[in-house]
Amino acid sequence: MSVPTAALDSSVCAPLPVLGQDVTVPLVTGGEVTYAALDYAASAPALQRVWDDVAAYAPYYGSVHRGAGYLSQLSTDLFENSRRTVAEFLGCRAEDQVVFTRSTTDSLNLLAAAIPADCQVFVYETEHHASLLPWRDAQVTYLNAPRTPGQAVETLERALADRDPYGPALVCVTGASNVTGELWPVKELAAAAHAHGARTVLDAAQLAPHHPVDIAELDVDWVAFSGHKLYAPFGSGVLAGRADWLQAAEPYLAGGGASRKVARRADGGVDVDWHTTAARHEAGSPNVIGVYSIASACKALTEAGFDNLVAREQELVSRVREGLAEVPEVQVLSLFGDDAPRVGVISFVVRGWNSSHFAAALSAEYGIGVRDGLFCAHPLVRTLLGSDPQDPGECGAPEAEPGERSLNAIRVSFGAGTPDEHIDRFLRAVSELVREGARWNYRTEDGRCVPDRGEAARI
Amino acid sequence: MSVPTAALDSSVCAPLPVLGQDVTVPLVTGGEVTYAALDYAASAPALQRVWDDVAAYAPYYGSVHRGAGYLSQLSTDLFENSRRTVAEFLGCRAEDQVVFTRSTTDSLNLLAAAIPADCQVFVYETEHHASLLPWRDAQVTYLNAPRTPGQAVETLERALADRDPYGPALVCVTGASNVTGELWPVKELAAAAHAHGARTVLDAAQLAPHHPVDIAELDVDWVAFSGHKLYAPFGSGVLAGRADWLQAAEPYLAGGGASRKVARRADGGVDVDWHTTAARHEAGSPNVIGVYSIASACKALTEAGFDNLVAREQELVSRVREGLAEVPEVQVLSLFGDDAPRVGVISFVVRGWNSSHFAAALSAEYGIGVRDGLFCAHPLVRTLLGSDPQDPGECGAPEAEPGERSLNAIRVSFGAGTPDEHIDRFLRAVSELVREGARWNYRTEDGRCVPDRGEAARI
Repeated sequence: MSVPTAALDSSVCAPLPVLGQDVTVPLVTGGEVTYAALDYAASAPALQRVWDDVAAYAPYYGSVHRGAGYLSQLSTDLFENSRRTVAEFLGCRAEDQVVFTRSTTDSLNLLAAAIPADCQVFVYETEHHASLLPWRDAQVTYLNAPRTPGQAVETLERALADRDPYGPALVCVTGASNVTGELWPVKELAAAAHAHGARTVLDAAQLAPHHPVDIAELDVDWVAFSGHKLYAPFGSGVLAGRADWLQAAEPYLAGGGASRKVARRADGGVDVDWHTTAARHEAGSPNVIGVYSIASACKALTEAGFDNLVAREQELVSRVREGLAEVPEVQVLSLFGDDAPRVGVISFVVRGWNSSHFAAALSAEYGIGVRDGLFCAHPLVRTLLGSDPQDPGECGAPEAEPGERSLNAIRVSFGAGTPDEHIDRFLRAVSELVREGARWNYRTEDGRCVPDRGEAARI
Repeated sequence: MSVPTAALDSSVCAPLPVLGQDVTVPLVTGGEVTYAALDYAASAPALQRVWDDVAAYAPYYGSVHRGAGYLSQLSTDLFENSRRTVAEFLGCRAEDQVVFTRSTTDSLNLLAAAIPADCQVFVYETEHHASLLPWRDAQVTYLNAPRTPGQAVETLERALADRDPYGPALVCVTGASNVTGELWPVKELAAAAHAHGARTVLDAAQLAPHHPVDIAELDVDWVAFSGHKLYAPFGSGVLAGRADWLQAAEPYLAGGGASRKVARRADGGVDVDWHTTAARHEAGSPNVIGVYSIASACKALTEAGFDNLVAREQELVSRVREGLAEVPEVQVLSLFGDDAPRVGVISFVVRGWNSSHFAAALSAEYGIGVRDGLFCAHPLVRTLLGSDPQDPGECGAPEAEPGERSLNAIRVSFGAGTPDEHIDRFLRAVSELVREGARWNYRTEDGRCVPDRGEAARI
């Protein structure tokens, strides 16, 4: 999993067309600008190609699996072909299953419900809550935040070696942090896990949209990702990997589709014969459009040349980092240090600013959409900020004491659809806001920091 | 819940425009015809209005709930407004919650995970597997198939009165059968349940698309339905109703969005403060497009005049029933008898025909999409067919012995988008196939009955 880190010419490739690239939004300071969607790490816009594929298919939509009609059979083929496309995209092994879920969160909850009863789980405190919290029935060891990739491996090896009893174990690790964008040493961690008789699930929610994932080459046991971060925001996600635990587990959802045969027993109860294929965990009518949109996105990224997309994104990463480095008030959050390879996800705080206030001003005065908060990774962000676990304060003013620790952060994130102009505008906005201050008043409303339209503008 | 049963003039209203109404499919006998989608009970086509709303919104899609950008705030408003639209559509009480799920199956699995530990569940064996099977951790009483609505109420009252211990109880009942289309006496059952200190969940998967549902008027505690049967096939569903059990339950999925605050404990563990709103059970990024599409469908049905749609559908029901009654070889499946009110879902068998063969011929020779099988309601269909729980046989030929019991059935289903011509064609096809036989050879392939293109056509 090597990522080019040298600055590359943006002629490597053009951004991929996405929906919404021409949408304009009003500025509080007057006029309109095209919206700069820089919150890809939360949800990315749909690729135009994905939308076109969905629009072309929609009139042919039909019930899958058991319908006798032409469109039902066409839809069934489309659904099952999408499974094969995703398997190819992830480099799945012959024995792997691809299960369609609603999201990464759902995929990891499914896996959590499928692990053996005596399976211990090892997870870094630095994970997104979707990776941190689903292991409710298991004995969980939360690993402290490592400060280097090597330390991550050492920490894991020690914990696995010391586990008691030395039974089945699962390691859950992110491919790229949803806060810092930093790449984790997945291949090394998977090797360490296997050396200690443990399995690995890769949370690829933030990796798959930014970097090719090869399940066989990484030698992880499962991969989970979401369509809505992979330019396919139609409500589907994926869990792909080893079939054995999935086949042995109780069906994730109970209902039609997962059940092969259901019959009353003589004693009044009900006997159920469950499928052992992926259908076992896909009860209910599948989200055919959502699944097809993921397959479409996988094809689009592959056909565009994923390596070119990576190279271009790395150029944008470099520009953002270099631009932010020129603003002394900005502190970029990092676990592994400046030189760590990372994807287009960068979080930071601005000295003297409340992060919600800063993000609101980026939106209201520049038409830029970023995110502020703790990014569903509370322990990690608090570790990075060195702050206590408190709620962020009111937004309307800079923090009381310049230099006081920030209670939350700002995250800028981008990807295959991001034009250079969005990055340029973002860097200009950061510089101007820090230098000149916001041009409007803001207040907290329903937990959001919003422009205060009841007061006169300061400009 | 009264349904007009008298035949009405089709001038009551026109069918609502749906996607795919102009799609043509090839006939095995040569040429093409527009596809007659008569499998609405599995998945209905998208309303054109729903598609148009989704297409108009798609460029404005953004991350919901925590994004600071304009499109994030717009998307968040759209998402939460959709919740209000669905609540209005269902006539929710002030204290009800609307939780967005992926489907009815998911909604009922969520409720199953939320009922108190000592809650007993009462469910008729006639339910869809989605209602029959999710109650895995509960003591379940399966009620035998009643043959009248009154018997259904009596059966339930007796079972509830006899329950031991007389503790918390939940009754799960369908609004309209996915096999017979027959309406169940929901209001009477809910009253019986409440009289015996039990709660009721209404499986409205087959009711909501065909008939207004008023949760307060029916006095049920929860309602579950799916978008893809309500002309909104974008992967979302609904569980609406009482908040108390939902608020008290463990979150359905563990992850971001459901968690308000997460922090490491001094002992190395993790403390989680979960939301108590609907978000508690909606972890992960929500399917905004799916949710919005459901709200759009709710509005479209309401604005078209749901009573008019019901009246028109009832006319189609009458035509199908009258047309099938003219073919002596056809036996319509019914639990409650000929006069029972029902929605546009009708199952039948044809004497001398294997149902899969018949359905395949409807598709291949007439471009009509129906469904054959046991419809994820195995105990009910077997009860109605009087057959043993065996797999259906090969399709390629009529059943060995004329008059032998069928092992599966054929289901025709329709709704707001169905033009008269589809019904006319279906009735003509049934009549011709019974009278003249199939014009092609069929064989079983991958469990499907398909035209045998390797053999010469019989025509």
